[in-house]
Amino acid sequence: MDGLLLYFEDERLLAGQIARAADMRAVQVKRHRFPDGELKLQLPAALPARVVLLRGLDMPNEKLVELLLVAQAARSLGVGHLTLIAPYLAYMRQDMAFVPGEIVSQQVVGGFLASLFDAVITVDPHLHRVSRLSDAVPARQAIALSAAPLLAGLIAARRPGAVLIGPDAEADQWVAAAAAAHGFDYAVCVKQRHGDREVDVALPGLSVKGRSVVLMDDVASSGHTLARAAEKLLAAGAASVDVAVTHALFADHALTTVLAAGVGEIWSTDCIAHPSNAVSVAPMLARALGELS
Amino acid sequence: MDGLLLYFEDERLLAGQIARAADMRAVQVKRHRFPDGELKLQLPAALPARVVLLRGLDMPNEKLVELLLVAQAARSLGVGHLTLIAPYLAYMRQDMAFVPGEIVSQQVVGGFLASLFDAVITVDPHLHRVSRLSDAVPARQAIALSAAPLLAGLIAARRPGAVLIGPDAEADQWVAAAAAAHGFDYAVCVKQRHGDREVDVALPGLSVKGRSVVLMDDVASSGHTLARAAEKLLAAGAASVDVAVTHALFADHALTTVLAAGVGEIWSTDCIAHPSNAVSVAPMLARALGELS
Repeated sequence: MDGLLLYFEDERLLAGQIARAADMRAVQVKRHRFPDGELKLQLPAALPARVVLLRGLDMPNEKLVELLLVAQAARSLGVGHLTLIAPYLAYMRQDMAFVPGEIVSQQVVGGFLASLFDAVITVDPHLHRVSRLSDAVPARQAIALSAAPLLAGLIAARRPGAVLIGPDAEADQWVAAAAAAHGFDYAVCVKQRHGDREVDVALPGLSVKGRSVVLMDDVASSGHTLARAAEKLLAAGAASVDVAVTHALFADHALTTVLAAGVGEIWSTDCIAHPSNAVSVAPMLARALGELS
Repeated sequence: MDGLLLYFEDERLLAGQIARAADMRAVQVKRHRFPDGELKLQLPAALPARVVLLRGLDMPNEKLVELLLVAQAARSLGVGHLTLIAPYLAYMRQDMAFVPGEIVSQQVVGGFLASLFDAVITVDPHLHRVSRLSDAVPARQAIALSAAPLLAGLIAARRPGAVLIGPDAEADQWVAAAAAAHGFDYAVCVKQRHGDREVDVALPGLSVKGRSVVLMDDVASSGHTLARAAEKLLAAGAASVDVAVTHALFADHALTTVLAAGVGEIWSTDCIAHPSNAVSVAPMLARALGELS
């Protein structure tokens, strides 16, 4: 494949894997941060007509400014087609004004990305009331891949015969897809949230007594939902509880929170670089690049 | 004056002063930061046709995302005319590619602000090769005010008969303007920069022996330029060296650096809230609001 993959230093590993799988050249964007917080970025002096930028958007705000700088500069250097691979896409949760005047950041950030990039590729975006990525990110092409099959394959190898449990109703379709591929039993919990870090979880009816359970979710953020679910599953007699997530966001002390609840292993994809990474989305992202129009 | 002034909590003081001087209503933008770094912002449920947003852009990246969110949401709530007051304007220094491929962030950020706001008002923007703010920020109205007269008035009261010294040639016009108003002697140093924090300064010919010297600059960032200049001025026999700046950015240990060099007092405007604030730009900003078309 022709074209160039630009990446930032902290995503060097994933960039290299995508570039190898897609047979592209990968070049690092040089980045300097001044003491006053301003960024100085440097691109290759000459760019081809098609350029792909890899930038996952965990801890998103500074990275959104990087996207603005890189995309505008790439255009001024003559790039005709610009693709963003954001394995983790931020600001997808706030999709309506829950009180009047609340800013619908999904719409604003989605529109911002669409104004900068011809194509946006992501993995398991956290969409609620908006079902298609293109409704949230109205770029010419907006492609949402799913890591559920990859995680299901991993679970089939590590915990054959496990019960898959989604921590809330929103995970239903996604856990169902993972379960179907390998014939796993599955169910989802009912979640009640009382704040950023306070959640309560009600287990599904399905018995987990004596069984290996894998909690599956698209994102592990504060870890409180996973921790509450794990505690209840163990109290209900589960033989073991492991966790499989697409995005290992793990803000603050999330990892400690999850492990303290009795979770055995945590497996994640490399959408966000993290010690728990156990399966790579690089081949899937490379395929998606190859299928762009 | 009709219209509404929106502000963020950390600029409450300056917002109140501007609103009182301009006879406007000031309302705080509600801001919540989730553990994963995403922002949730809330505006008043109804907005008038003309809205002013106060947001200084020191440590700019997260604040640029706030501007995007607020401006887009305000438009979707029907605001027809949107003004940004950014007492400190970021990303004005990088105004050309020093090596091929280097991103000209002044152009990108300036264009971004112009795409969001009808009018942009700032104080002493740090422009080098671009002389007019409208060339850097192509908004319908781009207004650069100067705090030099305010600082000159302060110096006239605190250090009558002082010599004004600018730390580099770029300060020349600005120091000259401050000096002219009160008949101060003045001159500028010659600066050589070897990195973010390494600078050397050559004193001007003007004798400072036995005289009170005030170092004036638009911005105090790392503090190294001011510190080097102060040391040399004291070594050349200056009776005292004080510092007057528009923007008290003072990144990292800058304040310690400056004081350790023997500087007596530091005076700044309230463009950036800081313990050194000694004079307010609020009346000047309010007047500029009143003169907008």
